[in-house]
Amino acid sequence: MIFIHDLNSILFGSTLTGRTVLNAVPFTQVKLTDNFWAPRIEINRTVTLPQCFHQCEITNRIRNFEIAGGLKEGKFDGIYFNDSDVYKVVEGASYSLWVHHDPELDKYLDDLIAKFALAQQKDGYLNTYFTLVEPDKRWTNLPVMHELYCAGHLFESAVAHYQATGKRNLLDIAIKFADYIDSVFGEDRLIGVAGHEEIELALVKLFEVTGEERYLNLAKFFIDKKGLTGTEYNQDHLPVRQQSEIVGHAVRAMYLYAGVADVAKYTNDPELIATMDRIWADVTQRKMYITGGIGPSASNEGFTVPYDLPNESAYAETCAAIGMALWNYRLLLLHGQSKYADILEKVLYNGSISGVSLDGSKFFYVNPLTSRGNHHRQPWYGCACCPTNVVRFIPQIPGYIYATSSDGIWVNLYISSQTNVKIGDVDVQFSQETDYPWSGLVKMNVKPSKNAVFNVNMRFPDWCKSAKVSVNGQTIDKKPNDNGYIMINREWREGDNVSIDMEMPIQRICANPKVSADVGRVALQRGPVIYCLEAEDNEGSVLDIALPRDAKLSASFKPDLLNGVVIIQGKGLRKTKMEWENKLYQIVSDDLETNITAIPYYAWDNRSAGEMVVWLPEVTSLAENKQE
Amino acid sequence: MIFIHDLNSILFGSTLTGRTVLNAVPFTQVKLTDNFWAPRIEINRTVTLPQCFHQCEITNRIRNFEIAGGLKEGKFDGIYFNDSDVYKVVEGASYSLWVHHDPELDKYLDDLIAKFALAQQKDGYLNTYFTLVEPDKRWTNLPVMHELYCAGHLFESAVAHYQATGKRNLLDIAIKFADYIDSVFGEDRLIGVAGHEEIELALVKLFEVTGEERYLNLAKFFIDKKGLTGTEYNQDHLPVRQQSEIVGHAVRAMYLYAGVADVAKYTNDPELIATMDRIWADVTQRKMYITGGIGPSASNEGFTVPYDLPNESAYAETCAAIGMALWNYRLLLLHGQSKYADILEKVLYNGSISGVSLDGSKFFYVNPLTSRGNHHRQPWYGCACCPTNVVRFIPQIPGYIYATSSDGIWVNLYISSQTNVKIGDVDVQFSQETDYPWSGLVKMNVKPSKNAVFNVNMRFPDWCKSAKVSVNGQTIDKKPNDNGYIMINREWREGDNVSIDMEMPIQRICANPKVSADVGRVALQRGPVIYCLEAEDNEGSVLDIALPRDAKLSASFKPDLLNGVVIIQGKGLRKTKMEWENKLYQIVSDDLETNITAIPYYAWDNRSAGEMVVWLPEVTSLAENKQE
Repeated sequence: MIFIHDLNSILFGSTLTGRTVLNAVPFTQVKLTDNFWAPRIEINRTVTLPQCFHQCEITNRIRNFEIAGGLKEGKFDGIYFNDSDVYKVVEGASYSLWVHHDPELDKYLDDLIAKFALAQQKDGYLNTYFTLVEPDKRWTNLPVMHELYCAGHLFESAVAHYQATGKRNLLDIAIKFADYIDSVFGEDRLIGVAGHEEIELALVKLFEVTGEERYLNLAKFFIDKKGLTGTEYNQDHLPVRQQSEIVGHAVRAMYLYAGVADVAKYTNDPELIATMDRIWADVTQRKMYITGGIGPSASNEGFTVPYDLPNESAYAETCAAIGMALWNYRLLLLHGQSKYADILEKVLYNGSISGVSLDGSKFFYVNPLTSRGNHHRQPWYGCACCPTNVVRFIPQIPGYIYATSSDGIWVNLYISSQTNVKIGDVDVQFSQETDYPWSGLVKMNVKPSKNAVFNVNMRFPDWCKSAKVSVNGQTIDKKPNDNGYIMINREWREGDNVSIDMEMPIQRICANPKVSADVGRVALQRGPVIYCLEAEDNEGSVLDIALPRDAKLSASFKPDLLNGVVIIQGKGLRKTKMEWENKLYQIVSDDLETNITAIPYYAWDNRSAGEMVVWLPEVTSLAENKQE
Repeated sequence: MIFIHDLNSILFGSTLTGRTVLNAVPFTQVKLTDNFWAPRIEINRTVTLPQCFHQCEITNRIRNFEIAGGLKEGKFDGIYFNDSDVYKVVEGASYSLWVHHDPELDKYLDDLIAKFALAQQKDGYLNTYFTLVEPDKRWTNLPVMHELYCAGHLFESAVAHYQATGKRNLLDIAIKFADYIDSVFGEDRLIGVAGHEEIELALVKLFEVTGEERYLNLAKFFIDKKGLTGTEYNQDHLPVRQQSEIVGHAVRAMYLYAGVADVAKYTNDPELIATMDRIWADVTQRKMYITGGIGPSASNEGFTVPYDLPNESAYAETCAAIGMALWNYRLLLLHGQSKYADILEKVLYNGSISGVSLDGSKFFYVNPLTSRGNHHRQPWYGCACCPTNVVRFIPQIPGYIYATSSDGIWVNLYISSQTNVKIGDVDVQFSQETDYPWSGLVKMNVKPSKNAVFNVNMRFPDWCKSAKVSVNGQTIDKKPNDNGYIMINREWREGDNVSIDMEMPIQRICANPKVSADVGRVALQRGPVIYCLEAEDNEGSVLDIALPRDAKLSASFKPDLLNGVVIIQGKGLRKTKMEWENKLYQIVSDDLETNITAIPYYAWDNRSAGEMVVWLPEVTSLAENKQE
């Protein structure tokens, strides 16, 4: 078995299409030095991770493995996909181990992995529910049961553990199971697809660390066979290549399409790439909240009709937002286009991290954009997909910052950090320093191992309307290229520096008029951060506040508030308190001037319970229109 | 059989409760002289009525009676409740005959009634569907089939025909059928209730013209037995006396509660009256459009949850609005409180007549409050309940204007008209002259047969905030009493006149903040008339228009527009035309000043197709707030 670290050799034919395929710079090659993500990753490690393991223990998720492995007597307890939660926490723990080596955690993982090994059947099969409850029913109910989903999360955890520790104990379990699955499924064997997708992208990860093309082919098989049952819920309504609109369960869709993007990258399949283009346009142009959240409906945990984006009843599951990040990151690698990084960034700073409290101990399953104060994060859920997705997602983020191509480095996200990459035969130390997302100024240092010509590609975010670029202190006139990046091509020498200073005004965003929920309303955005008004900062209520067009708004950093945030303040108007008891309609009264304070959306529900709103009623008046 | 015209004698005990029970002044005692309703009744007679009869002929609705009566060979055609449409048109025709005697129509009705007589079975049963298709299945599927509903419409048409013409040919058919139904249903016989209510109120009408208490008791039986199946759809979820919230199919609910109000009036049943109070509060305070329309959901043609009043997807069936008028008129008689007349008036001038085109030839089944230009009236519907409800409703309206009590006359609606009523032993000629709803000035003449002390009660509408009252040219200081009426008690003499001059400013109405569809929006109202903006008057689009608080609005009468309407004009703001193709979110642009013109909501969709909106985005600005 060959372990490869650079798969460029098999990214065949990609240049033929005019696409720029990027190579990932994995989390193991990036060290964060920032004040936004590094503290989150540390809280994730010290609070969220032990809490998730604790929950996996007290809810018998780990005990299920012990029973299946013969270590304990008992019955399977919980939901049939509970194995996946344990794997996802192990995945998160592995990333954490890399950032902060912790011998105790390392030992805990090894002990847990030993339990997995005992629970694994002789033929490689590993699923405690089926082993303990329905041993004769393996693979008999693929649309409903989550065997392939659980397998995928095992594979992802194994790859992360191997990357972070270099140990093969979990990887070998994964390989054994993958080989068994490969022996069961195939054109001349069992033909089936995952009811809850996940295995597709996981098999590609396994392919990437092992170089074993069978796993890539098996991922392709699971994608190619979609359309078997005709059901939209799990994207099985049509063959993937015929799909044009996003439908069904949002998390499933994201996991499937992340796998499709991976397979498209390695196979350069024009049909799959065209499918991704269509689906991406459908999601981002018709079915995405301004927070990057997706899937408005609780009834199917997923998609409905175009422009149906209700705010208060928004489902916008945390897992779906994370899936949106996973998918867009892969599309970024597939195309080298900043528009995918724009969505990745939107999800990162808004709809994904809203899913976890600032202290790392509580989680949202759904992420509404309007609340009457009745939505609150919880420490755990019976269906625990969201907490265990948060714990494995947060520490992955360093891996999204950089990428490389044969001729340069790509800065996709602005986060203070250091990395070492190889461009051709040149080793390059690259670092950036910034207060992003609170400031648009980013200073970067380039330190090649020898003087060398290559490109530094800096993403020009879609929210940015004006930026100043400098090299070694000298302003240069550079517009973003077709990829949406500022590309600087020169001979780089040790000590060179480059900076981008992006203007970061407060922006009032309106939605396409077809989004009926947002007609006549605006959302406040600054940089990539979407804001909300919360009752705590606004005299106890916010649903009665309107934002006049002539309201001057100002931004200021508050180091002691919500772990340090830029807030937006200004004057708004509040509906006169009218007496509404037993009344449905009344003549309007004058509004009252009021101070308003907006905080980043992701930070809401971290203090007292109360109303929250993202989209504020807004309209200009004739008077101010004439003044202009 | 006793025919009675004054049922005061059996309105036992009503004064004990403090309620003021009013006596109806039927349509036969009122002559319209106005420019709003009289032309509508004439168009209803000359256009809508012949069109409805024509449709009943070409759709084989009348042929079904001919076949059932042995006049023709053939099979039943159409929907199983199609008999009801014919009865409803006959009811409308009867009112029309009274207003304008037409020997040809009189003959046509007699011929049609002869067919009904032939189709009636020997035992009195009359339903062409069951007679022709399922003769053995009478009364076997009450929750679904509409036998009792069709019977009720037969009874209503018979009462109207008898009142208008004095002929008994149709009334005798109705009595024969009612007696048969009374022999089938009862405590010791078949226990069942109507799946689609209607028979309850119809039996009370039959009781009112015949004095036969069995019909009142049978109506009470059908009401008392509700709760049999536990289904909300037809208000059969609970016994009526335990009902507190309005649920299910809106038309069914209205017809049922109209019957309940009738029965409560004659039985003085405190539980039924309390039930009406609860249900009325639920509808009018939580579940009613500003047009008086009810039943927001297409899925059940009815009610959902409180404050769910979406505008574009509003169902608000024309029949339900008419039902709302029928019910509130009966509650007005039951209580003598103006609040019920306020709702009656709201429905009359808005949500009911929006159901018919100004030329009387086309009908809305659903009445949205926002349209993208895709809603249009049609000449007929397969389920023709709405056209045939319009044709019988419009000419009933004269009967709603006046009422009497033992000590006075009650003016419930302001419509130029004359009536003759008896107050005690005094005959009183009463007339009013007004341009209502366009003007709030109403001049009334009182002409008693002899000098006599009695009350003239003039309704003080809820929309009115200030009014001047004069008697014989002298202003008097009078506030509305607890019934919501200006009561003038004096000795009246021939030649006396009284006037009320209600200020009628343009009002901006807002909705209870719990109505999420209307947050940040206002509707324009003047007098009882709700306004809308239609594309025709507003440069082709209205969904992009906002109404600033400082926009001066003016009202003016346009005699040549839409058969003569007061329009509202002023300045608004229009969203800059932004390019939205392939975009979901953008930074807002400045708005553009624009002229706006609003027309009465009822008159929309009478010209070119286009957008329409009732609720406009509206907010004040800081600048104007400071100017105040």
